[in-house]
Amino acid sequence: MKLYDYVRSSAAYRVRIALNLKGLVYESVPISLLEGTQLGEDYRALNPTGLVPSLAIDDQGSGEGILGQSLAIIEYLDECYPEPALMPATPLKRARTRALALQIACDIHPLNNLRVLKYLTGELELSEEQKTTWYHHWLKQGLSPLEQQLGGDDSRYCCGDTPTLADICLVPQLYNARRFKLDLTPYARLVAIDQACNQLTEFRQAHPDQQPSHPGENLTRR
Amino acid sequence: MKLYDYVRSSAAYRVRIALNLKGLVYESVPISLLEGTQLGEDYRALNPTGLVPSLAIDDQGSGEGILGQSLAIIEYLDECYPEPALMPATPLKRARTRALALQIACDIHPLNNLRVLKYLTGELELSEEQKTTWYHHWLKQGLSPLEQQLGGDDSRYCCGDTPTLADICLVPQLYNARRFKLDLTPYARLVAIDQACNQLTEFRQAHPDQQPSHPGENLTRR
Repeated sequence: MKLYDYVRSSAAYRVRIALNLKGLVYESVPISLLEGTQLGEDYRALNPTGLVPSLAIDDQGSGEGILGQSLAIIEYLDECYPEPALMPATPLKRARTRALALQIACDIHPLNNLRVLKYLTGELELSEEQKTTWYHHWLKQGLSPLEQQLGGDDSRYCCGDTPTLADICLVPQLYNARRFKLDLTPYARLVAIDQACNQLTEFRQAHPDQQPSHPGENLTRR
Repeated sequence: MKLYDYVRSSAAYRVRIALNLKGLVYESVPISLLEGTQLGEDYRALNPTGLVPSLAIDDQGSGEGILGQSLAIIEYLDECYPEPALMPATPLKRARTRALALQIACDIHPLNNLRVLKYLTGELELSEEQKTTWYHHWLKQGLSPLEQQLGGDDSRYCCGDTPTLADICLVPQLYNARRFKLDLTPYARLVAIDQACNQLTEFRQAHPDQQPSHPGENLTRR
């Protein structure tokens, strides 16, 4: 498998975690969002959205294919490689796991990703301060209900005692929150889950700073 | 089942379509986004995100529960009520269906929903014209790759000859595009799929103008 990857894309970070948890070996193909590689003809021929990540797979019986959208990729991996399961066993628990993941993937991340921040400071000529206020606003709008929803129990991870799709979305989102210097004090439960996840090698090796194939990208540049 | 619903929320519209396709009877509880009901204590006690829709279910064996996030709700319904299937049968096809749905649910809709538009004209003091430019920008960014991806075949719906999660996301998104007067000429394939969907009673009856329980909301107000 080949992962078209950008170190600090939190959507790509999610897929790296899932691939590691499944024990799948993959080749990482760097796509630089800073240089706009994702908008070039070569990448768009693979994935017309011009968004990362994409996963090139060799599906049994169906030939090769390119999958887009991190959550769709992770569900695909979970269906094709069932162990260890990244989704709970019952429909109701799966619904709760998916809902937590979507609260991050739909309600926080799309508002704060690089193309949107560029629109704010480019087309709309907003200041860096206004951009940061925007960023923090949507983070807080999204993290507060998560803290409340997850605060009710003391399971090790978001949905029980093994990591699921919800944790896979949470960890990159908190990484982003720290990069943008959000005070995480109000989110003690989320921080505890993040710490539990990061005790696992599979999470740590997916971290942006641990991607050796992306030279020059492992620093604090945005 | 009770659907906490707002007529013009495209996330709620998706769930109405899914409930209709499954032939499930539900009670609609109007939550007025214009009046801010979703941010009140009563609704937040049910769903801390303060977002619609929520579905109150009586899960067999697990008691009652409140589900949030339209895509999680629809996957839950599809797992509990398998006929007619809203997802294809193979992992690869399911991944493609989910990816198309997420391209709408993550890459278009979150940028253009009411709370974001309010932030643009409120906190950021943008003009109506800047707001509309923003709205059209993200629509076009999202619809163009969809048109390209779906243009390659002539199936009746997005993913074959029966409606799936992808169609359920597409129809409300095109409804929104028309409300905001985007020229849909470049998206002939998407418009054809939308027309095919709207030949089905289940789609038509989920349309915002067909929600009799929401008095005064069926007009052109935003």
